[in-house]
Amino acid sequence: MSGKLYAIGTGPGAPDLITVRGARILGQLDVLYAPAGRKGGDSLSLSIVREYLGAATRVKSRHFPMSQDADEKGVVWDAVAQEMAADVEQGLQVGFITLGDAMLYSTWVFLLARLRGRIPIDIIPGVTSFAGIAARAQLPLAMESQSLAVMACTDDDRALETALLSHDCIVLMKVYGRFARIQQLLRRLGLIEHALLMANASLPDEACFYRLDDLAPDRALPYFSTVVVNKRWRAAGDEDRCLTSNQGIDQ
Amino acid sequence: MSGKLYAIGTGPGAPDLITVRGARILGQLDVLYAPAGRKGGDSLSLSIVREYLGAATRVKSRHFPMSQDADEKGVVWDAVAQEMAADVEQGLQVGFITLGDAMLYSTWVFLLARLRGRIPIDIIPGVTSFAGIAARAQLPLAMESQSLAVMACTDDDRALETALLSHDCIVLMKVYGRFARIQQLLRRLGLIEHALLMANASLPDEACFYRLDDLAPDRALPYFSTVVVNKRWRAAGDEDRCLTSNQGIDQ
Repeated sequence: MSGKLYAIGTGPGAPDLITVRGARILGQLDVLYAPAGRKGGDSLSLSIVREYLGAATRVKSRHFPMSQDADEKGVVWDAVAQEMAADVEQGLQVGFITLGDAMLYSTWVFLLARLRGRIPIDIIPGVTSFAGIAARAQLPLAMESQSLAVMACTDDDRALETALLSHDCIVLMKVYGRFARIQQLLRRLGLIEHALLMANASLPDEACFYRLDDLAPDRALPYFSTVVVNKRWRAAGDEDRCLTSNQGIDQ
Repeated sequence: MSGKLYAIGTGPGAPDLITVRGARILGQLDVLYAPAGRKGGDSLSLSIVREYLGAATRVKSRHFPMSQDADEKGVVWDAVAQEMAADVEQGLQVGFITLGDAMLYSTWVFLLARLRGRIPIDIIPGVTSFAGIAARAQLPLAMESQSLAVMACTDDDRALETALLSHDCIVLMKVYGRFARIQQLLRRLGLIEHALLMANASLPDEACFYRLDDLAPDRALPYFSTVVVNKRWRAAGDEDRCLTSNQGIDQ
């Protein structure tokens, strides 16, 4: 059997939100590469998929630095890509897991750029974090002729403002450490009543906040925090924080 | 056991790209509502999930008109929502399936607007069509501070142009019957070399087209055709049409 590299999106967090194909492939791997947040630290994506791993699967946790230094990151990507290629060339079934979907804000893309055309690669898509949030909050993303923008809060204010003004629904990823700025921007544009913030959607410690106007700007938020703005819906702030009102729905 | 309504995203088309949770719930349903394209017509979403259905599950195919007449559609949504609510109130486990993800361009949202707060509802997210396309074409959606816009081609040219100019990656849904206009727009904006068109991603009749400049504007395309534009990558048009070059990747 010839070797192959599988990049598998784990979905938003709950283990059973991975695809059936992803779960099956995980059970057949010889080696699984799992990204670790810190050197020696736990991997959230590994904890998500652990129940699907075959008994013989060898796990290789690899640390990808969050550094702003492109060279430092490039050295790590080169080394891990090289290691993966060597495993595949030995005929092994090799996996790499990534939270959400593999092609959206994932380290996987940097590995793909190094491995494409060198070894056989299969990418298994995953449920994105924002689809997980929309499902849990019962907040639609877009319908009919509406549009959706997915932005990283590391982008500049002008780009975020343009997206917030141009689209019906806007997903703001990478909010961690940037909430005060986002809160201010949403207030200024009169959109804060249409926004919600969800952290760790579908995980046991999921938290959902409406009334973002009332949230302390310096409030400590979990690392996986995302803001979703839908101009057609108004966040309600019910007793049950994961329900919005359906008033204001544009049919 | 009390009744519940489950809205289940089937993913892009291959049966094993549904979530593990979606597959499990399908096996436990008393009733499954499946959208049918035409009266009495086949349901693609039903064919995707058939293998997961329990032996006792009763399938109710329901036709949702594509009409421009909002009243006509509203009458159907009201009737189906009413029928679902009655089933749930009888204590049944009731499902509704929708291609891709349930909260993005899905009839489900119109049913949700009618049923929210009336009966218990659980939404199971799915892999979006564009995540399926990105995986198959090995074309990244967005990374780092890049942004992604998801647009419906039923939107006006000005909105499409703004999105094409503002974002790094743009997904154009609902291309069917509108390709000539999209081709012209991509040419005018100098983006046609960064675009690909994929139809029926992950299904046996999947087709992927690069070199959209060469495609006849009146070419008959499958109904589920989507254009993805990524300014940081250039579609290659390899022998293998589902591979793009990794030249031009922005690291």
